Amino acid sequence: MPEDNVAETILKADKLRTFINALTPLVDECKIHMGDEGWHVSAVDPANHAMIESLDLPPRAFDHYEAPGSATIGVNLVRLEDYVKPADPGDLVELRIDMETRKLRIHYPNTDTALALIDPDSIRKEPDTPDLDLPNTFTMEGGRWGHVTRVGQLTSTSIRVSASPEERELYFYAEGDVDDTTVTYGDEELTDAKIADDSEAWYSLALLEILTDPIPSDADVTARYGDEFPIRLEWSDLDGDMQMNQLLAPRIKSN
Amino acid sequence: MPEDNVAETILKADKLRTFINALTPLVDECKIHMGDEGWHVSAVDPANHAMIESLDLPPRAFDHYEAPGSATIGVNLVRLEDYVKPADPGDLVELRIDMETRKLRIHYPNTDTALALIDPDSIRKEPDTPDLDLPNTFTMEGGRWGHVTRVGQLTSTSIRVSASPEERELYFYAEGDVDDTTVTYGDEELTDAKIADDSEAWYSLALLEILTDPIPSDADVTARYGDEFPIRLEWSDLDGDMQMNQLLAPRIKSN
Amino acid sequence: MPEDNVAETILKADKLRTFINALTPLVDECKIHMGDEGWHVSAVDPANHAMIESLDLPPRAFDHYEAPGSATIGVNLVRLEDYVKPADPGDLVELRIDMETRKLRIHYPNTDTALALIDPDSIRKEPDTPDLDLPNTFTMEGGRWGHVTRVGQLTSTSIRVSASPEERELYFYAEGDVDDTTVTYGDEELTDAKIADDSEAWYSLALLEILTDPIPSDADVTARYGDEFPIRLEWSDLDGDMQMNQLLAPRIKSN
Repeated sequence: MPEDNVAETILKADKLRTFINALTPLVDECKIHMGDEGWHVSAVDPANHAMIESLDLPPRAFDHYEAPGSATIGVNLVRLEDYVKPADPGDLVELRIDMETRKLRIHYPNTDTALALIDPDSIRKEPDTPDLDLPNTFTMEGGRWGHVTRVGQLTSTSIRVSASPEERELYFYAEGDVDDTTVTYGDEELTDAKIADDSEAWYSLALLEILTDPIPSDADVTARYGDEFPIRLEWSDLDGDMQMNQLLAPRIKSN
Repeated sequence: MPEDNVAETILKADKLRTFINALTPLVDECKIHMGDEGWHVSAVDPANHAMIESLDLPPRAFDHYEAPGSATIGVNLVRLEDYVKPADPGDLVELRIDMETRKLRIHYPNTDTALALIDPDSIRKEPDTPDLDLPNTFTMEGGRWGHVTRVGQLTSTSIRVSASPEERELYFYAEGDVDDTTVTYGDEELTDAKIADDSEAWYSLALLEILTDPIPSDADVTARYGDEFPIRLEWSDLDGDMQMNQLLAPRIKSN
Repeated sequence: MPEDNVAETILKADKLRTFINALTPLVDECKIHMGDEGWHVSAVDPANHAMIESLDLPPRAFDHYEAPGSATIGVNLVRLEDYVKPADPGDLVELRIDMETRKLRIHYPNTDTALALIDPDSIRKEPDTPDLDLPNTFTMEGGRWGHVTRVGQLTSTSIRVSASPEERELYFYAEGDVDDTTVTYGDEELTDAKIADDSEAWYSLALLEILTDPIPSDADVTARYGDEFPIRLEWSDLDGDMQMNQLLAPRIKSN
């Protein structure tokens, strides 16, 4: 680690905010692993249902990146988000981690903040990434997930994902006490689809909204799911520089 | 009724929303009568003070209209409003009423909802439309009613409507404990006015706001009133395709 | 005073609102002195910590100004703000003070309000303007105060103002329980600076925000302060037609 236990990186304010905003809907604090391959985060919600398997920001996303060996810091994401909010989108933000004083120094034009780091051991344990066989895959724009969660939540708290292999159509079905709603996406909306079988699974709409909320509306999102199995969402932002893998556990029943 | 008790209509999402939004400030649910002359609604607020004498949407307002004989359905307007909100303004919304299952099927691109209908008998009885002699008439743009209700409510909860036959001026007077406010509209603001006498009447500003809120600011609104009598508001929207008649009972005193 | 104890002035709605909005963050009611030199207000917050030493609106700011000798009226600023809000920015607002009925008559197109005045003796006594020797002076744009109060309040409730005479740099330092933040402005941001010594003083960020909130972001604000002494802010709006002097007492400690 250069300069006696101090790591320094520089990146644009809007990129840093994109990274933070991909995490804060799910968790308030997390561990950031910093190594030769950039930043890496893995996190899970308190109930262990929704998971960020991996969020990666490689060195090329930064204007300057010093690999501090393989340091891990604990960060209060909400406070970091607050401190970076007043910066202009194009401002260069310098982040300087001092492992001695356990502070993250945040600098952008005219403004310096020393944010206390959190003991990584006090943060919820990172999830084990399960090895899953998810036979059905489809890809569509992020904005379509917004429509599914918005419309679905008018009817219920859960959504059933299923598909027709013959029709190459995806069905998102919500069932309320008296109403029901189906969102259908076919060839016109799906960038890609490999539907192996007629698997179906139910997921929490609230958690699906938390996971899909930070997805840019025009980003290609690849989803993989299996019968009563989790759904995995893979997408990228920052022109491909930030890569996200999310996993959501299935629910037993619809309500 | 075509297709065994099933009626189908198609209209643009923004037109359907305009129709719903004209009702929801006053009532959460209503009966919609569907016949050869289109849709017809009549409704009154719980206290029986503010009334939609008639809201009419004729067949020409629809992209496709099938007259189901003379069916009447009970609709939860708030839920219908929610379900139609995510549609794009120009989306064609298909509404298919199935009297057997008592469902309203709402379809727009990619999205299908089955909304449970309400037993029309459980909805507040439609008001009797009183036969009234309202000698004074004036017409002005909808936005001016917005000014009257906004300014009046800074001072009081009631407004007095009166006019000068000689001056052809309308006066809206609110009297608070220590302040008072008068809004005056004359030839410059009135599109038309037939002032027969110096009648005056007080009306609830809250109810007047509920009735006038959905009026487009540039729509011509014709008002008729008499001494300590109700005021009737007549206006149209959707290029004249939607016609509204509203009636508001007078108050005894100013506060 | 012309016309038997009645004074009349006319000014544009947006100018009147600018005047009112410079006062309402600090006080709900105030005395307005009206004389040959225009309107003059002086006011202090309930805890006697933040003060408007003087807010002046000279006759040239008005479209018509009649000097009523030297009258003083008590005004409920919040109600006046409400009554003027519906006027269009360019509307001419006539204000007619009737000392007999103790009413302020507010007139703009189509709209007349009589607002009850307040007995000036019932309003908090105007502050004595202290004679202070404040050796350090700097001038910067109003928007920079917005940055200081916004960023500072993420960390603490107080801010320390200090400067380096050698570097011609201003430092705004907030110290929280575990974090700290410094905003630094130098030659590039300071329009002018005369730093005599290394004085420092702490101020309440909440009160600083109240005082600086109405400052236009591009207005030049001159600040004067001394060691553990108040800070004085001087700025103008309405192209120089409205002149404000504010004073904020120091705090003993940082938190």
